[in-house]
Amino acid sequence: MSFATKEFTHQAFDQVKGHPYGSIKDKKVNPDLQEERDKCNFDQKELTKVIYGDDLETHKLYSRLMHENKELHTTFEFYDMTREEAMERSMKQFNYIHNHPEILKHHQSKSLTTLMMDYMQGQYPYGISISMFLMTIQNLGNDQQVDTWGALAQQYKIHGCYAQTELGHGSNVNGIETTATLDKSTDEFILHSPSIKAAKFWPGELGRYANFAAVCARLIIEGEDYGIQFFFVPIRDQTTHQPLPGVECGDLGSKIGYQSKDNGFMLFNQYRIPRTNLLSKFCQVSKEGNITLSGDPRLMYAVMLCMRMWIFCIVWRFSAYGTIIAGRYAVTRRQFLTLEKGVRQERKLMDYQAHAVKLVGTLAQSLTFNLAQNHMNQYYFQFIQELYSGSEDYGPLKIIHHFASGLKAYYTNTVHNNLTTLRECCGGAGFSALSGLPYLFEGDNTVLIQQCAKQLIDTGLKNKIPKKFEFFGYLLDLPKQFESLPHKSTFQKIDSLEAVQDALRVRAAYQVYTSVVKGIAKDKATVKSKTLFNEMYQQDQVIMSLYHLQYYTIWSAHGHIKNAGIKCPNLQAHLRKLVTLHGLNELAKDSQVLYDCGYFKPGTGGEIIEAIKRITGELRPQFISLIEGFDISDNTLNSAIGNSYGDIYETYMNLAKNSRLNRNGNDYIADYLKRTMLPVLLTEGPKL
Amino acid sequence: MSFATKEFTHQAFDQVKGHPYGSIKDKKVNPDLQEERDKCNFDQKELTKVIYGDDLETHKLYSRLMHENKELHTTFEFYDMTREEAMERSMKQFNYIHNHPEILKHHQSKSLTTLMMDYMQGQYPYGISISMFLMTIQNLGNDQQVDTWGALAQQYKIHGCYAQTELGHGSNVNGIETTATLDKSTDEFILHSPSIKAAKFWPGELGRYANFAAVCARLIIEGEDYGIQFFFVPIRDQTTHQPLPGVECGDLGSKIGYQSKDNGFMLFNQYRIPRTNLLSKFCQVSKEGNITLSGDPRLMYAVMLCMRMWIFCIVWRFSAYGTIIAGRYAVTRRQFLTLEKGVRQERKLMDYQAHAVKLVGTLAQSLTFNLAQNHMNQYYFQFIQELYSGSEDYGPLKIIHHFASGLKAYYTNTVHNNLTTLRECCGGAGFSALSGLPYLFEGDNTVLIQQCAKQLIDTGLKNKIPKKFEFFGYLLDLPKQFESLPHKSTFQKIDSLEAVQDALRVRAAYQVYTSVVKGIAKDKATVKSKTLFNEMYQQDQVIMSLYHLQYYTIWSAHGHIKNAGIKCPNLQAHLRKLVTLHGLNELAKDSQVLYDCGYFKPGTGGEIIEAIKRITGELRPQFISLIEGFDISDNTLNSAIGNSYGDIYETYMNLAKNSRLNRNGNDYIADYLKRTMLPVLLTEGPKL
Repeated sequence: MSFATKEFTHQAFDQVKGHPYGSIKDKKVNPDLQEERDKCNFDQKELTKVIYGDDLETHKLYSRLMHENKELHTTFEFYDMTREEAMERSMKQFNYIHNHPEILKHHQSKSLTTLMMDYMQGQYPYGISISMFLMTIQNLGNDQQVDTWGALAQQYKIHGCYAQTELGHGSNVNGIETTATLDKSTDEFILHSPSIKAAKFWPGELGRYANFAAVCARLIIEGEDYGIQFFFVPIRDQTTHQPLPGVECGDLGSKIGYQSKDNGFMLFNQYRIPRTNLLSKFCQVSKEGNITLSGDPRLMYAVMLCMRMWIFCIVWRFSAYGTIIAGRYAVTRRQFLTLEKGVRQERKLMDYQAHAVKLVGTLAQSLTFNLAQNHMNQYYFQFIQELYSGSEDYGPLKIIHHFASGLKAYYTNTVHNNLTTLRECCGGAGFSALSGLPYLFEGDNTVLIQQCAKQLIDTGLKNKIPKKFEFFGYLLDLPKQFESLPHKSTFQKIDSLEAVQDALRVRAAYQVYTSVVKGIAKDKATVKSKTLFNEMYQQDQVIMSLYHLQYYTIWSAHGHIKNAGIKCPNLQAHLRKLVTLHGLNELAKDSQVLYDCGYFKPGTGGEIIEAIKRITGELRPQFISLIEGFDISDNTLNSAIGNSYGDIYETYMNLAKNSRLNRNGNDYIADYLKRTMLPVLLTEGPKL
Repeated sequence: MSFATKEFTHQAFDQVKGHPYGSIKDKKVNPDLQEERDKCNFDQKELTKVIYGDDLETHKLYSRLMHENKELHTTFEFYDMTREEAMERSMKQFNYIHNHPEILKHHQSKSLTTLMMDYMQGQYPYGISISMFLMTIQNLGNDQQVDTWGALAQQYKIHGCYAQTELGHGSNVNGIETTATLDKSTDEFILHSPSIKAAKFWPGELGRYANFAAVCARLIIEGEDYGIQFFFVPIRDQTTHQPLPGVECGDLGSKIGYQSKDNGFMLFNQYRIPRTNLLSKFCQVSKEGNITLSGDPRLMYAVMLCMRMWIFCIVWRFSAYGTIIAGRYAVTRRQFLTLEKGVRQERKLMDYQAHAVKLVGTLAQSLTFNLAQNHMNQYYFQFIQELYSGSEDYGPLKIIHHFASGLKAYYTNTVHNNLTTLRECCGGAGFSALSGLPYLFEGDNTVLIQQCAKQLIDTGLKNKIPKKFEFFGYLLDLPKQFESLPHKSTFQKIDSLEAVQDALRVRAAYQVYTSVVKGIAKDKATVKSKTLFNEMYQQDQVIMSLYHLQYYTIWSAHGHIKNAGIKCPNLQAHLRKLVTLHGLNELAKDSQVLYDCGYFKPGTGGEIIEAIKRITGELRPQFISLIEGFDISDNTLNSAIGNSYGDIYETYMNLAKNSRLNRNGNDYIADYLKRTMLPVLLTEGPKL
């Protein structure tokens, strides 16, 4: 819309046009990307070791398997598939794995899920069957049930799903409506869905794949409700794969994301199963209808917590993959002229301050979450070991539940928001599925955050460290800590890791002080607890949990940097800066409490912004080297704009040309135009 | 996983199970939803009037047309469609409209776009053809070109797209690479794409529909580059609909959202068009190759700005639709027991404080953005009127560009984030496409925000109100305003609309003071401007623009409440509270600058949170009445969980049962299992 500017004429253009680009086809690395790699000033291999820790060998193995077996690659065709095609493709890939002993021998449930979901970025058709379903049998079934049904699941001879959540009850498990009523005359349980709200809703692999289900239902014997139990239930005919008579089940329809997963629904209509299908490790029902409870269900709960642990321990991958893609794009995509090394050319996106602030920020978050998981991981693992060795101390269970719930909520929410930022950073290309940018959807995490807050309220009210978990020490003696304000900082400036960590500590402590010691403690004498926690102070619980978890995350990541035995001093320095940056970003978003108690003074806000800008600038030259330390292959990323060649145009263009709608031809459009639109009279058209 | 709790036994359950639910099928309104409506204490019809303003009659018309013509309904089948099916459906609906004069007579481009995109929530296949394409011809074409080609476009006899953006250049329009070289010997222009980066990329309707294009290319005459011009270009054969020889074009492939839109790509290979296809209102090229420029292109730019204005003026609809859906769900979905009016039942999601804070927050944002648009709308409309009446004062153009760029960026980003919150508020149901929750994807808005900042930097440096636009007066005499800190507030508390507005004003002013007066003003003498604005102060530009726009939005919305002649005092009070709440939410997210200058004191942060909680509680009883004041029909919302009956289970369940994968049968799964999986040996299976 404007006329020629002398700056950007045809002649000047030739110089820019001559700029070489990356090519996957010709295996040419984009020089813009190479020059970034050449700046690396730290031991990148050591970074990869720090990121994967004990999983390093597994990571190398999966990378090698992906490299050697192209049948495991997602490929760009995946983005054009219908749901049916995507599911069929997952099944083919699974079958390939299953017929290759080399791959299959690593098939503990966790590892094959990791391979298929993290490395193949696909769907593992047996993902639930081999984890939630199998674990339910193993944890709730008696020895015989584990030996028969558990073995069948482990050998992929049956395909199971985990049917707990109902249309009417998700968070409130105690509200489950499906009933399992004992019929003594036939020695059976009758499963029934008393209303549509009782329909099992959302279980993965229920929609198409599963022929069995671990079903959660209310145990009813002679009119008495004994609460929730699990049952082993055949749901589809093993030959025809049709739902068995009395079972109605199928797929839930189109979703946002995860289109290749078959989340399903299921209704029971007076459906009979043998009495012996009650999973009977902790609860036994005799032929006569006598019920016996035995064992400690907390053991089972402790083991099931591993699923929630797993989520917050892997979610850094999503933002890391996204940062690699958006990061490579940002150092190869150029827009608007500048003078660079004496040559007039367009400026790399990454050389815009605001762009760098965003991407170094998501890098910082990805690494911080990765480093921070180690502490709770070790704590959990040690606890499980001790339980299996015969310990009866369930003390740590509360702590693990507290952190697993809270960190899952905080981490998934943060990563989701950062993925949005990463997608925007890629402009129009971010809009295309071919970018390969991950998508993470999370439901409402408020319930989890509220559960996390319980421990903080408890500690604040009782002034005792729970279960010898020293980290909570910062919440002791709150009235004394804050008796006289301002609560001064011992740090002169806010730009070191120690200063940032301390600020996060005080923020969390002061919030617990105001919400719990000065708020809840005073009101709980006169207000019913449900009103107190759901109406008056729920917002406070959300806020104090997040502050606590953000402090814990920095504390944990910082601790890992100190204890991981990192040899390369530059690497150590970069990691410290990244964790500092993540903490600064959290403080920049929300520091009011620190002003309220006087820990922050007028001017600190500006210092935080300046520190963010400065650290971003310092890390900028190492950005690509750091993000590539995650060592994620092109086969996994499957990105037309974030591949290791820095090819952002050639492959993208070719894929567009060959995309589905173009392969199918224009026939229906042409037909449609001819039959239904107003005909264009060529004699009326413009002269061509 | 737990045993029976005495609280929730089978017997107590009957009482809850007896709870009546809504039903679209039986036209029964959920009593939980009805009781919310019954609390209405204001004139809801007047609210609808305030929301739609001058568009009220259009709104009523479209609502009626939707009601009377079921062919215009999106229907739930839409969510299961492939891209091809969705496109074909859009074409059928368009054709229906086209064959119904009653509907067609309202077909100025804007209104039919509004009908199809906002009310039908579908795709308007001719959306670009009848707006961007047609406007380009009308604004850049000479009289003859407008009378022939413009008329053809207006009559739907040709289908055009707007081909400006290229694979290598989006934001930097001056970097466009496509060339149009004059061939004097044949009296033609030769269109050519010199590299793949020159490929036209992203234009809507280019992928499948368009047979013509308004193409943006560099005008080359005898080796001289005269810059960007537009050309009227046939691209597909009008009978076979195949790309014409020398043109390569097609669809871009799968995208995130907007799957039924056919964004496309296009390459030219020495493709010839008549010389007279140069759109020649402002630029004429003779047979001999002499180029003449005439007229004022600013007029054309002023008219094209209406597209950017349009976006920020309608984006409130997305968050409003989402709030209606999530809001109705929140007052009918119950989870976890409580005592309500003496009856033990599960608590409405909306009766949890944290949930209410979120939803009343998105309601506040939706209404605030709706109210705030009026000021700039009127300013723009008046400017265009004056131009068409012969005025040559283009002064307002800079102001409009400033606000259109900035508000588009700020509003789309805010609405996108709120849509994420709304989706999470619906838990699992938010994950399903059947929820009907809108999706809004926006690319990177940093360029727009930076363009918006120019005016702030200008005003801060020159200390002059631009173009008599009084609103900028708050940025005058900044050194004097802030010469002695703390900069005290005249308000005792932060919880009135006037106090919130003043805080936003000071926040914006102080940021311009620190970034511009104390920062840029001092560095610009010694630092190159590209380095200054892209490397040192880009982050500052982003921040100061957002603060300025947030202040403007509250100021504008507040002004509209005062001037709109609202009769119902309760309605006026509710609107004031909602705008106050939106401002408080913005302050809660980012107030550091106000502490830096001393305007906020220790304790203000806590006051803001308490004010948010209090106002939320006050508005809670009116929440449904307020959100239903938007008067959006079920046919438009197309939601299994947010319809006017409060039916959140029955329809959702039926749609799941009938979804695509279930209709197609299980054949391929059963086949696949039999052929490729390990066979299940029935003799090994559990006894059933």
